[in-house]
Amino acid sequence: MTYSIIGMGAIGGYYGGRLARAGFDVHFLAHSDYAYVAENGLRVDSCCGSFYLPHINAYRSSADMPKTDIIIVALKTVNNHLLPELLAPIITNNTVVVLIQNGIGVEADLQAVFPQLHIVAGLAFICSSKTEPGHVVHQCYGSINLGNYSCPAARFSLLVHDFQQAGIQTAEVPYEEARWKKAVWNMPFNGMTVALDTSTDKLLATPATRQLIYDQMMEVIGAANASGVETLTPEFADKMMQMTDEMVPYSPSMKLDYDFHRPMEIYYLYTRPIEEARRAGFNMPKLAMLEALLKFKDVKAKDDKH
Amino acid sequence: MTYSIIGMGAIGGYYGGRLARAGFDVHFLAHSDYAYVAENGLRVDSCCGSFYLPHINAYRSSADMPKTDIIIVALKTVNNHLLPELLAPIITNNTVVVLIQNGIGVEADLQAVFPQLHIVAGLAFICSSKTEPGHVVHQCYGSINLGNYSCPAARFSLLVHDFQQAGIQTAEVPYEEARWKKAVWNMPFNGMTVALDTSTDKLLATPATRQLIYDQMMEVIGAANASGVETLTPEFADKMMQMTDEMVPYSPSMKLDYDFHRPMEIYYLYTRPIEEARRAGFNMPKLAMLEALLKFKDVKAKDDKH
Repeated sequence: MTYSIIGMGAIGGYYGGRLARAGFDVHFLAHSDYAYVAENGLRVDSCCGSFYLPHINAYRSSADMPKTDIIIVALKTVNNHLLPELLAPIITNNTVVVLIQNGIGVEADLQAVFPQLHIVAGLAFICSSKTEPGHVVHQCYGSINLGNYSCPAARFSLLVHDFQQAGIQTAEVPYEEARWKKAVWNMPFNGMTVALDTSTDKLLATPATRQLIYDQMMEVIGAANASGVETLTPEFADKMMQMTDEMVPYSPSMKLDYDFHRPMEIYYLYTRPIEEARRAGFNMPKLAMLEALLKFKDVKAKDDKH
Repeated sequence: MTYSIIGMGAIGGYYGGRLARAGFDVHFLAHSDYAYVAENGLRVDSCCGSFYLPHINAYRSSADMPKTDIIIVALKTVNNHLLPELLAPIITNNTVVVLIQNGIGVEADLQAVFPQLHIVAGLAFICSSKTEPGHVVHQCYGSINLGNYSCPAARFSLLVHDFQQAGIQTAEVPYEEARWKKAVWNMPFNGMTVALDTSTDKLLATPATRQLIYDQMMEVIGAANASGVETLTPEFADKMMQMTDEMVPYSPSMKLDYDFHRPMEIYYLYTRPIEEARRAGFNMPKLAMLEALLKFKDVKAKDDKH
């Protein structure tokens, strides 16, 4: 099977690199890094074994890429309006697209554009960063959960098998539950670290914000239940609290985006799940308030930049 | 009737100064400014006519003050734990205490300590500031609404009459409704300007925070209704939005406290009304979240100071 990787950041560079390293036929769509990676290849410094790929198949435009069996989308969702144009030249009737992205609703929106496409949700548990063009540093973790959104079972199994062949710890998870479970952690911590310009440990060390984080997790669980995911129970919030207590102080991806003056993924992380819950008759007042605070800070950050 | 003014800040200095200027027998409890005002008196630069009182009755401790007919408390509520000790030496069986303070519940808490005390709520609509010891600058407005909490009607009328005699625009208002009405503006704008480090106009210029401010106002109106104040209707939120649109960009008192590294009045402005509403069966999720954000920022500000 052939692979195309859309986005050569910390996620696309790492998983695409692993697949290429394992001998799969991988094609990378690069953007600002194109000239560098076409010349110098891709270096991955990894806690699970570093490697260097001196030659990779790099492209400046997806129009130049071959039709592909499996496409991994590793763009920030703020760029998802570009997906139809990026994907159209390289998909076939059998193409599988894996969306390794944050939030709720990305699969449904892509499916609406390409009704025949086989879509899979990728939920990465990884600490990695792109430190410079063609250079990914992978600090820890690295597993990926794949949730089948609209992919024939046999093809989905092949995909899981390929990932495992490439040395990526891969598990199959129920799609809806997996997306909402990730939101239980993502929705409180991404926004709250931005809103209060702080880190996960400080939010949990102050009683008032500790309770607020818990209340927000319960809003996500309530929204998931209202949306038909009944397997998600309050115990999962306790588990996420405990897990975060045991983590090193952490800046979630939205905090990094904000600190580095990049646009924040407000729509798929907040607006969309809040809308979906409301349609299902469930309100998320504290996360809706967080959404408003983030929108204000986003506007201010853009104004400050200009 | 004799007057004692507890607190010589922008509020106590202004209203106490007006009463003294009109010839009433006024006694001022000063704190850090005592030495200066005992020597130099009080200067009020006012849009309604400036004046200078070269000699005022200033005290370092309320134990030295005479028993008083009317006491005006113009302290920040973060100091209200000091009130029993400050007031005990100067009250009689007939003393009226006017609390010119922010928030919900200050009268009830003082009444619990002094069950016989005649208590009046003072709601000041004024822009004034203490620019240095013994010097108050009054920029605009200046009216006061008095709400009778537990004062015999005849004495209350005398008080209103005295204020009017002193040239203070004074109106009598229903106590509960007046406190909650003020909270409709105070609860959203005080906290939100701190949470987002901004001013009233910017909050209203961004659609997401404009809606959030309105939602928070509706939470206060819901809480007031649940607490038995049925005269407060959604139209009052519309009125407050429009009034704020027409105001010059404004930093509420809590924003000034935060900017000048003073403690914020979180308890009576947020914790207490949220508790009272909850007891009446009404939740204020967005203002409860704001309370948590403020508590976090308050802890952080104290840590930064030390």
